[in-house]
Amino acid sequence: MTSATVRMSHGSGKGNKELLETVVFPALIPGGVGTLEDAFIFDIPGRRFAFTTDSFVVSPLEFPGGDIGKLAACGTINDLAMMAAKPILLSVALVLEEGLDLQLLAKMLRSLSAVCSSQGVRIACGDTKVVDKGKADGMFITASGIGIVKVGISLSAANAKPGDAVLVSGGIGLHGITVLSRRANLHFASSAVSDCAPLFGISDALLSAAPFTRTMRDATRGGLAAVLCELAESSKVCIMIREDAVPVPAVVRGACAFLGMDPFHVANEGRFAAIVPPEQAESALAALRAHPQGRDAAIIGTVAGPGKFPVLLKTSIGGTRPLEMPPGDILPRIC
Amino acid sequence: MTSATVRMSHGSGKGNKELLETVVFPALIPGGVGTLEDAFIFDIPGRRFAFTTDSFVVSPLEFPGGDIGKLAACGTINDLAMMAAKPILLSVALVLEEGLDLQLLAKMLRSLSAVCSSQGVRIACGDTKVVDKGKADGMFITASGIGIVKVGISLSAANAKPGDAVLVSGGIGLHGITVLSRRANLHFASSAVSDCAPLFGISDALLSAAPFTRTMRDATRGGLAAVLCELAESSKVCIMIREDAVPVPAVVRGACAFLGMDPFHVANEGRFAAIVPPEQAESALAALRAHPQGRDAAIIGTVAGPGKFPVLLKTSIGGTRPLEMPPGDILPRIC
Repeated sequence: MTSATVRMSHGSGKGNKELLETVVFPALIPGGVGTLEDAFIFDIPGRRFAFTTDSFVVSPLEFPGGDIGKLAACGTINDLAMMAAKPILLSVALVLEEGLDLQLLAKMLRSLSAVCSSQGVRIACGDTKVVDKGKADGMFITASGIGIVKVGISLSAANAKPGDAVLVSGGIGLHGITVLSRRANLHFASSAVSDCAPLFGISDALLSAAPFTRTMRDATRGGLAAVLCELAESSKVCIMIREDAVPVPAVVRGACAFLGMDPFHVANEGRFAAIVPPEQAESALAALRAHPQGRDAAIIGTVAGPGKFPVLLKTSIGGTRPLEMPPGDILPRIC
Repeated sequence: MTSATVRMSHGSGKGNKELLETVVFPALIPGGVGTLEDAFIFDIPGRRFAFTTDSFVVSPLEFPGGDIGKLAACGTINDLAMMAAKPILLSVALVLEEGLDLQLLAKMLRSLSAVCSSQGVRIACGDTKVVDKGKADGMFITASGIGIVKVGISLSAANAKPGDAVLVSGGIGLHGITVLSRRANLHFASSAVSDCAPLFGISDALLSAAPFTRTMRDATRGGLAAVLCELAESSKVCIMIREDAVPVPAVVRGACAFLGMDPFHVANEGRFAAIVPPEQAESALAALRAHPQGRDAAIIGTVAGPGKFPVLLKTSIGGTRPLEMPPGDILPRIC
């Protein structure tokens, strides 16, 4: 490594080769890369696939419980997991700002690689671009993923039906509060640790216990509120949530009370909502709770026929209020 | 459309929904999107696939002959085409800078979409993130692609053998000179038009005519020199190029002479090199020249056994010099 930071010359030619060979490949693919081709070639006859993509622009790059590398791997793996797909291949495209510390870059890539290794996901292809100082913010990662869909499972956001049960896999809001507390230096929330985690294991356990699950979705940007609104709108139903039933960790509750925020609007990176038919609700809950990531899982509501609002919240004090999508500017750059 | 520029609130929640529904989807998927899921699901039994990704950070966003949208579609399609894969699916991940003009965004997305339509490529999934003003440069696009590999074709950068012929599909350097002339306001190169184009048609024609083709690679960052060096190193051979045989458009020749640049180092986005066994060289050349994008195609050299340098250039004046990878900082952000 001839330089401690990313230079514009790392963007192409010899400089790019050097960056890849001394920093990117050793961190990302510790086993070594083979012949570099323009695309990764693979065969899997007779299977159904899922394909997804996400860009990650989180600020700051590191936070308690994770960093942009872990987030990129988890976020993309989770989008596949939510479609009942076992993640198998990941692509990694980097946009690096001139001046980025190369050791920090390597750390973020090792973090991404570690999640992939733990999940049996192969990093199949990648790209690295460099932009001038002031034209990005450290680094952005775009990860695309391919997964193999579990046989016999049919999930869709449009599948929820009146009578179905609504579950959440754990306490909500930790990722958003953690990133916010780091960004704004909020000492009262300094004990928060992001929930950022790969969800394939726990979601697959749920599908095994409740194979007629209608839909699952990880509650990222916009929080649980956004996910419930999206699912209700896609299925043309009303989702009724009992506020008391939703697990909210004390640090999230405290931070939200102080900041005037709604925990339902705060982003998660390791929590998901699932809608299951009523007869499988208890087995689904048991499967979630039996998993280390799901100890606080809960049945939080039911699906009703279409109404004036997509999601209604029965509040702790006995009232009812519509749960709406956040307007959008509460916690920018959370992932 | 309630605002003329991208706002931070377009990053999540209602604002994100509005941005997607009023700008991104109409521009990108004119036929309308179905139910939005976390991943795109598809079946193609018994086929071999290729998977690739690229981020695009070109500056400026628009240039004669193309823009960042066209570039993103072509660049990803071309990486698949170079592996003998017919592109079928594309993902589109956007990182938008606060303040980006929404009409410009829509224009870039329509441009991307038009290339996909013309090539029969489906836009399968996407993501949109917004970062603060000054933390990106207008917009970055990351496109990942999946293609189906042509049956009976086996290409690899490691396959070139002594005696093989080296071909280039057309005149080199137009993309790089075009972008540079726009960025630096070089009037003497104002007639340059980027070669940016999807290459699947012409590369597939070459493979039909020369099915034992060893390898193909599009000459993007680092130009033809970088591609030839990569192929020679992967195959552990020396590539001998006749300088006189390489087609260099007059505007590229003039600009490079004025700027002291080597046309071999200048990026292309619609030109590729191919290495074919000697007995198929003439049919490969005829197939390239018969295609509208390949009228200036040429056989530019031959493969020899390993030597001191990966690529040697026989110059017009009768000498020989090693053709090296560019150091990397000649033309940053060309794609």
